[in-house]
Amino acid sequence: MTKPRILITNDDGIHAPGIFALWEAMSEIGDVTVVAPNTEKSAVGHAITISDPIRIQEITRHGGFTGYSVDGTPGDCVKVAIHSILDQPPDLVVSGINMGANVGTNILYSGTVSAANLGTMLGFNSIAFSLDAIKDGDFSASKPIAQKVAKLVLKNSLPNGTLLNVNIPNCEASDIQGFQVTKQGSEFFQDWLESREDPRGRTYFWMTGKIINTDDQMDLDGFALGKNYVSLTPIHYQLTNESFLDELNTWNVK
Amino acid sequence: MTKPRILITNDDGIHAPGIFALWEAMSEIGDVTVVAPNTEKSAVGHAITISDPIRIQEITRHGGFTGYSVDGTPGDCVKVAIHSILDQPPDLVVSGINMGANVGTNILYSGTVSAANLGTMLGFNSIAFSLDAIKDGDFSASKPIAQKVAKLVLKNSLPNGTLLNVNIPNCEASDIQGFQVTKQGSEFFQDWLESREDPRGRTYFWMTGKIINTDDQMDLDGFALGKNYVSLTPIHYQLTNESFLDELNTWNVK
Repeated sequence: MTKPRILITNDDGIHAPGIFALWEAMSEIGDVTVVAPNTEKSAVGHAITISDPIRIQEITRHGGFTGYSVDGTPGDCVKVAIHSILDQPPDLVVSGINMGANVGTNILYSGTVSAANLGTMLGFNSIAFSLDAIKDGDFSASKPIAQKVAKLVLKNSLPNGTLLNVNIPNCEASDIQGFQVTKQGSEFFQDWLESREDPRGRTYFWMTGKIINTDDQMDLDGFALGKNYVSLTPIHYQLTNESFLDELNTWNVK
Repeated sequence: MTKPRILITNDDGIHAPGIFALWEAMSEIGDVTVVAPNTEKSAVGHAITISDPIRIQEITRHGGFTGYSVDGTPGDCVKVAIHSILDQPPDLVVSGINMGANVGTNILYSGTVSAANLGTMLGFNSIAFSLDAIKDGDFSASKPIAQKVAKLVLKNSLPNGTLLNVNIPNCEASDIQGFQVTKQGSEFFQDWLESREDPRGRTYFWMTGKIINTDDQMDLDGFALGKNYVSLTPIHYQLTNESFLDELNTWNVK
């Protein structure tokens, strides 16, 4: 039996630990190709590069890891891979493993989830993987989980236009409570600007903030993750608020 | 009666013609503040700046136009305005007028729509305005349209979490057929990479492509726009594919 062809990307960059873990996991179950940003591109959402030229470079890391480094966004990487690198279309697109959960409204900013969605929009089964750790994440428990989910998606297929958003607790494998199918919850990043002065006396700002989560149901992504469940959320970008169409029509704009 | 406070941003940059037209239109109906990217930031979606410092500069243009120029994304601009520039919260956030339609799946990449959604997420009535022209757009017909829609939103208010995505035909005012409440259609940008060689003999790529629209119903955004109607689409980012939850549970992942 031929191995499935798996395209791997991320938004933390091709030198991140998370993509190395995903490469290790996927290499055991498929023929993998890595195409990822040359540097960290967190919080870029669906951004693509249309006003700058894009360059591609082959790179190697330890352990046999090879890949294509792109000076663009996660979204660029998926398009570049499909249009210009892969000889045959992939059976699966995987993105991650992101350092940091992608749940609630933070999904909107996520380069990891957006890269998976680019795969979805091009017609491929796609999965986004994220680890619930801001830094110093331990990816060892993530690898068998990523393999299990990837095999299930390859076997069952996702609906057209839908990706699977997978969030993994940052704990020992033995502490993971299981898998939970979830919906996008309301967790969000309450941000503010921190003002500083540079050595030349000029003011600049850092975007900072804290995570707020008031969800209390096990079928919501951030809550299930916090209870050490692997959260599985089917995501699609059908953005019309259908329930408001009738009322908008009563505004009677002319 | 006090005038409504209106925050104006865009993704084409603070020196673009579209934001000047929007500033002219909104200045006649409200007290306006402009906070926009210092350069063009098209196709950046919900991107925000978290790994670089953000700087703010006051600028002036002709005709009395003043504003705050931010070296960040459209999303940054809304956050910066709310957190650090405005003394009081705005009654309305408007984004645009973008040079280029934002309909169908292209909404996902849109900095214009994402900026409006940042306003929405912070709890404010927000509108994205786009003109159906890639270049050399004529914004004269757009101004009364933007005023009309802004007044209606100020009067009626949008539901929590929902922005209004407004697309305006690029034609004489007399050729506009009216307003049409629409849903997000299927129009998309079929892209590919164009390979070139730089003067030093190294290969680089441009992202390019063409618009594909097979929609044929007047209640879909791109189709209505093509028929010279102003398209009004209520947009929200509730991304769960609810219809797939039951089937995903049958996968029985353990």
